[in-house]
Formats: sequence, C-alpha cells, structure tokens
Amino acid sequence: MGGILLKNIMSDGKICDILVKGKHIAGIMPAGTGIAGSDVETVDCSGKAALPGMVNAHTHAAMTLFRGVGEDVCFADWIDRIWKVEEKIDDEYIYWATRVACLEMLKTGTTTFYDQYWRIPSAAKAVRDMGMRAVLSYVHLDHCDSSRFAMQKDECRRIFEDSADWPDTVSFSVAVHSVYSVSEEQILWASDFAREHGLKLNIHLCETLKEVTDCRQCHGMSPVAYLDRLGVLGPDVIAAHTLWLDEDDIGILAERGVSCVHNINSNLKLASGYRFLYNELHDAGANVCLGTDGCASSNNLDMLEAMKTAALVQKAWRNDPAAMPLDELFAMASSHGAEALGLDTGRIAEGSLADIIIVDTDSSFFLSAAPFMANFIYSAHSDCITSVICDGKFVMRDRQVPGEHEILTQARRVLDRIR
Amino acid sequence: MGGILLKNIMSDGKICDILVKGKHIAGIMPAGTGIAGSDVETVDCSGKAALPGMVNAHTHAAMTLFRGVGEDVCFADWIDRIWKVEEKIDDEYIYWATRVACLEMLKTGTTTFYDQYWRIPSAAKAVRDMGMRAVLSYVHLDHCDSSRFAMQKDECRRIFEDSADWPDTVSFSVAVHSVYSVSEEQILWASDFAREHGLKLNIHLCETLKEVTDCRQCHGMSPVAYLDRLGVLGPDVIAAHTLWLDEDDIGILAERGVSCVHNINSNLKLASGYRFLYNELHDAGANVCLGTDGCASSNNLDMLEAMKTAALVQKAWRNDPAAMPLDELFAMASSHGAEALGLDTGRIAEGSLADIIIVDTDSSFFLSAAPFMANFIYSAHSDCITSVICDGKFVMRDRQVPGEHEILTQARRVLDRIR
Repeated sequence: MGGILLKNIMSDGKICDILVKGKHIAGIMPAGTGIAGSDVETVDCSGKAALPGMVNAHTHAAMTLFRGVGEDVCFADWIDRIWKVEEKIDDEYIYWATRVACLEMLKTGTTTFYDQYWRIPSAAKAVRDMGMRAVLSYVHLDHCDSSRFAMQKDECRRIFEDSADWPDTVSFSVAVHSVYSVSEEQILWASDFAREHGLKLNIHLCETLKEVTDCRQCHGMSPVAYLDRLGVLGPDVIAAHTLWLDEDDIGILAERGVSCVHNINSNLKLASGYRFLYNELHDAGANVCLGTDGCASSNNLDMLEAMKTAALVQKAWRNDPAAMPLDELFAMASSHGAEALGLDTGRIAEGSLADIIIVDTDSSFFLSAAPFMANFIYSAHSDCITSVICDGKFVMRDRQVPGEHEILTQARRVLDRIR
Repeated sequence: MGGILLKNIMSDGKICDILVKGKHIAGIMPAGTGIAGSDVETVDCSGKAALPGMVNAHTHAAMTLFRGVGEDVCFADWIDRIWKVEEKIDDEYIYWATRVACLEMLKTGTTTFYDQYWRIPSAAKAVRDMGMRAVLSYVHLDHCDSSRFAMQKDECRRIFEDSADWPDTVSFSVAVHSVYSVSEEQILWASDFAREHGLKLNIHLCETLKEVTDCRQCHGMSPVAYLDRLGVLGPDVIAAHTLWLDEDDIGILAERGVSCVHNINSNLKLASGYRFLYNELHDAGANVCLGTDGCASSNNLDMLEAMKTAALVQKAWRNDPAAMPLDELFAMASSHGAEALGLDTGRIAEGSLADIIIVDTDSSFFLSAAPFMANFIYSAHSDCITSVICDGKFVMRDRQVPGEHEILTQARRVLDRIR
C-alpha cells in the first residue's frame, strides 16, 4: 500500500502535513512532523492549500460535447436540438465525451460526480480510466410508452447486474427523468428497484414553472406532493434543480430527507428561474448540494464558477449580501454532495477517502487580507488548482492529466459524427 | 518602427495573418500571405484565435488589494470597512496595487480600463510600467464640505496639468463620485472643468434604490433628471451602474449620448440589484459597456467572467434565454467601452490600435460544435488567453507578464500596511 505525504500544506487555516495511505487520509499532523516511511512519496506543498475534491451533485457528463448546441435560443428550440443530436450518439461517443467531462472536472477541482445519462457502461469505463469517483444513474424516460418502459426495465436490470464488476470508485444508481416525461408505472418501478437494491434515486424536480403548473393540472398537486403520494421520496432520493417550490414542498423534502441540488448556471442560462430557495431549504434542514448540470445548458463543469454565481445571485435577489455565506457555499460543493451520495469524501479528515485538490495561492487572486475561502471562491479561477488526488492517487499533477492529448483528439473525432 | 506578424490566427471566423506595425494594426491578410519584412517578429498562431483586448469601462484598480475586505456583510458594514482601510493608503500603495490590478487585467484579457480613484499620478506610473492603456479619472468627493471642495479643485487642476507628461497610452479624466456624496457646486465645477478641457466625466449613477429614493426626496427628481437639469449629461459622460432607471431616465441617457456601464458582479455581490435594463437601454440607442467595478465588491477584474454572469442573469430575470446575445455581449466588453472613451481600440481592424489578445483553443473548453464566441464566453476561463499585445507590443507571452514576481512581492509588502 503506497502513500503520499503532502508537506507544509495549508488546510482549514493551519499549515500541516497530510499523509495519504492507500485510498484514505491516514493522518493530519502539525507541519514538519509527518514522517513518510517506506513506499510513500513526499511532496513539498509550501505556499499551497489543500481542499477536499469537490462533488458535482448533478450533471450529464457525456453531454459535454453538446456544449453550445443552442446559444441564445428559447427552451423549445434548445431541447429540439438536443434530441436531434442525441439520435446520433453511440457507446464510443459516450466513452470519449465522458472522458472529456472527467478531464474538465479534474482540471476544475471535482473528484466525484453524480451523473444521469444513457449507455452508462461506457461512461463507467471512462470514469475508471480517468481515476475518478462517480455514481452513474441509469435514466428511465418512457414518455408514457409501454414498450420503452419494458425495454428500459430490462436494460436497467442488466446493467445493474453487470455493475458488480465495476471498480469500487464507480457505482450504479437509478434515475427517473421527471414527473412530466415518465409514466407513474415507471416511476414506481424505478423507485422500487432502487430501494430493493439500496441504490440512490435521481430525478429532475420542479425545474421549471411549467412543470409545476402542468403537474397541478394533471395530478391536482405539486410534483413534490405527487412523488410523496407515490411513496417515492426518502433519504435515498437526490432531486436536481428544486427551483419552483412552495412552503409545503420544502417541508416534505426536508422531512423525507431528500437531497436537493442547486444548478444555478443551467437555471439562469435556460431562463428557468433564479429564485432558488436556499435559506428556506437550509432552515428546514434539507441537505442542499451544488451541481453544474450538463454542458448543453451550463457550458462547463466548473464547480468553482457555480459557487460564485450561486452566491452572487442569491445575495442579489434576496437583497441580502449576507445570504449564502462562504462556509455553507463550499459545503454545498463538497461534503453535502458526498452526504447525498453516501460517500465518505468531500472533507479532509483522518479516515476519509483521499480525494484532495491542491491550490496554488501564489497569484494576484490570493493577494488580499481576505480569508482563503473568499479568495478561492470569489477571486480565483479553477486554474489555481494545480494537482488533484483521487482515491489516494494523483490524477492531475501541475495541471497535467495523463492522456489529455489523446482524449482531445478522440473527442474531436466523435464530435464530427454529431455535427 | 518594429512590428509583429501573427501567422495563421483565427479572427472573426477566418484564418488570417495579422500585421502589427508600431502601435497599429497595419494589415489583416489571408493566411499565408502576410510578409514580415525587416524588424518584424513572426509568431506562429496556428490553433489560436485573435480578439481585441477587452475594455473594462469601470473599475477602481488600486482597490484590488481590498478584495474580500467585507465578505457576506451588509452594505453599511462593507463601506465602513473600506473607509477605514482607505485612511491607511499612500502613493506607494497605489502604485503597487495598480500594478497588481494591471497584472490581473492582462492575464484576463483586458488591455484598456477606465479608472476612478485617488492619487492617480501613482496609478499613471503603474499603468505605464505595465504597458497598458488607461483613462484615469480624478474623483471629486467633497461630502458637501467646502474645504474639501477647494482642496480637490486645486489638486484636480494640478494633476491635469502634470498629465501632459504622461505617456500617450494614459490619459486624464474627471470623476464625480455620485449625486449623494458631492455638492451641486462641485458637480458643476467638475463638469465644467471636464468640458473646458475636452475630458471624459465619470459618475456612479443610480447604483442603488436608496440613491434614487433619496434624490427624489432631496431634489424632487431622479438622479438622471437632476444631472440633466444641471446640464451635466452629454456624450462625454460615462455613467457607472445605471441600475435603477425608469423610462424617462433611459430616454434622457440615450438622447444625451451618455455611455452606461453595467457592473454585474458588484451589483449582485453588494445586493444592489440585478435588473439591469439592457434591452431598454440598447433599444433606446444608448451605448452600453461592461465593467468589473473594483475588487472590494467584485473580487476580481475578469471581464470574461463579467460577460458570462451579465448574460446569464439577464436571461434569467427576463425569462428570455435569447436576451443579451453573444455578439452584443462581446461588443459591450470591447468596442463599446472604446467608443465611450473615444479610443480606437476594442476591435481588430486595419488602422486600429494594436491591442490584441491571443486565445488558445486547444482545450476541452473549445471542444464543441458551438461558435467560437460561445465557447470563449460561456465555457472557457481567462487562462485560455495566452498572450496579449497592447499598443503594438507584447505585454504577456505564454501567460508570463514581465515583473510578476516583483509585483506580487511588493504588493504583499504594502498590503501589510492596510491590514
């Protein structure tokens, strides 16, 4: 079991030595007291800071090559373009597009992500080959067509069985696309399947006002109340967007222990809305996480950018510059996502998984009397993240990710197919 | 007269050769046809794109070291902290803080900025030493105290006279802080002084709802109407923020030819507001520019980030994903700012000033079927900007700005004084 000793690194306001052994953080010691021992690589991290690798709690990694597919167009035109492009994709496309996504996530400090997409065995291979951590959810989306439902049921079962062979950094999950695109029968089947096998359940929930209005017309209640009536909501559910909520919805989500993922850039860019009820969800005790959504709507997978935008927009519409303070903001982007996924990552603590990002503070962006976290989130850009450790191994060093050139080359090739 | 030949560079969708001679763009030719001639350095720019250096139309450069001085606190606490810190600054502080600001602007693709601050001769030296272009406005802020007014009048005259010796990339301008902090007598004096000498006039205008409410109470009209009654408004005026406007204000600003600067990150972070009336100003024919404001409120000087946030927020609150389209967005960040300042920069055209940024497109962020500008603004980060030419000379090459280490070292030293 090899290891890494990060010497003289700033963590939580103190300079210390961090020892990684195998997949875990074995010790956090006062600077200068960490002893490497045999088979341990010592890395001098003077002038650098350690943070937990971030957890992107909602994305569609393989959509990374769809970025910019619809710029400055309305939602209907945008989704129409997405669907046309999706008809052209295959397993090879998924593999390389997911590797590009992983490359971009590593470069921007994310080590774990929660994905929802098609053809996930190819995505699982890509995540494995990048050395990242991910929970990949198989998406159920029958458009109320029973033959699709039957096909997806079989495929979900089959992929779940095969996932036993996936490495322990990649795990299987179930997704239901949304209440407006999936039959009640399929929602129930997917939810039961997830619960039976102890899997997380992902759903797009209350993303647009139209979704809520339509659901009220169709079912006489909000999407949250509807899912609750079906018995779907629980601490194993991770709901993306949760933008258009009323007081009752918030009460239900908090009581059931549902994790809620804020996807600010996507919500803004598609003009879905901006009044994410962070304070209300937080005060009700809900676990609020942060995600980027897919690149088709948010254009990149940068959690640092997502944090800044989330806080700025929250402060503005609430007319409260104290809204969404720094510590809570970073927790949304790290430990809260880990908690949602049931993974012991997203924090730097003895015994936790060794998912660590190393930040270079030797730039103008960190030149201020402000706390480190203010400079990191509000001033710096993700290129301050110089190295990344995931599952106890370096996956990026000095901004170099192994295989980058091949990934870009192959991705250009598969991109040509979907133009 | 030396020169630079940028070979095989993408500009405006075409691969071309761009010839810089002296301070100007001498020619834009089909790729492969540009001939260097003697005393011209040829640079292969295959896989790279040229854009005009951006124009930050409103900032306070020397406040860069104040970044994070008040995080997650209300406006009253924030301004209180600023004023306390400002008591400690001196010419040496201004010089190094402005150099840090210039360093950060160059690294994020800005070659020209419009500044408003104190002790501007020190700032002028810093801008000269960084090889940048700036218009520095001396700020009038008497707080209705006649002795301050007298002192500032003298100082303004004196610095203006001395500015004849500044290099031609740096010019003098006049600022009036705001209608709520400056006496009518001083507003009129500053405005007359600017007009008499053909100088631009800068003012913070309608930044907060309180400013507008107070002005209506005090003068019975909006700040815009009040300034118009005083005869201050004209095409030589550059108004920052212009956030809380009514229909009449917009009509006046457009008719008088006032340039309006949107400062999205500052407005969001201080919770000043988010409903910038871009469409209305644009449709009325006003010249709308983009700025970052100072780092005390926006935390960095990154115009690329400001463009993305401006567009996303505009789309969201208008419920219109087509709002603030890409081409208009980049114009706000470049040619519109140049127009406001009366400078022939902010565009890549024969005869224009040679202020050019070179963008490396060989990264995942540019890997899509989207137009270059979509990838640049919505996907990439400013570290894609590898080299910068200002006034016909390289001021950054391969992310290296001459003197960076010394700037950071000296800035740390002066920062210690204001802690």
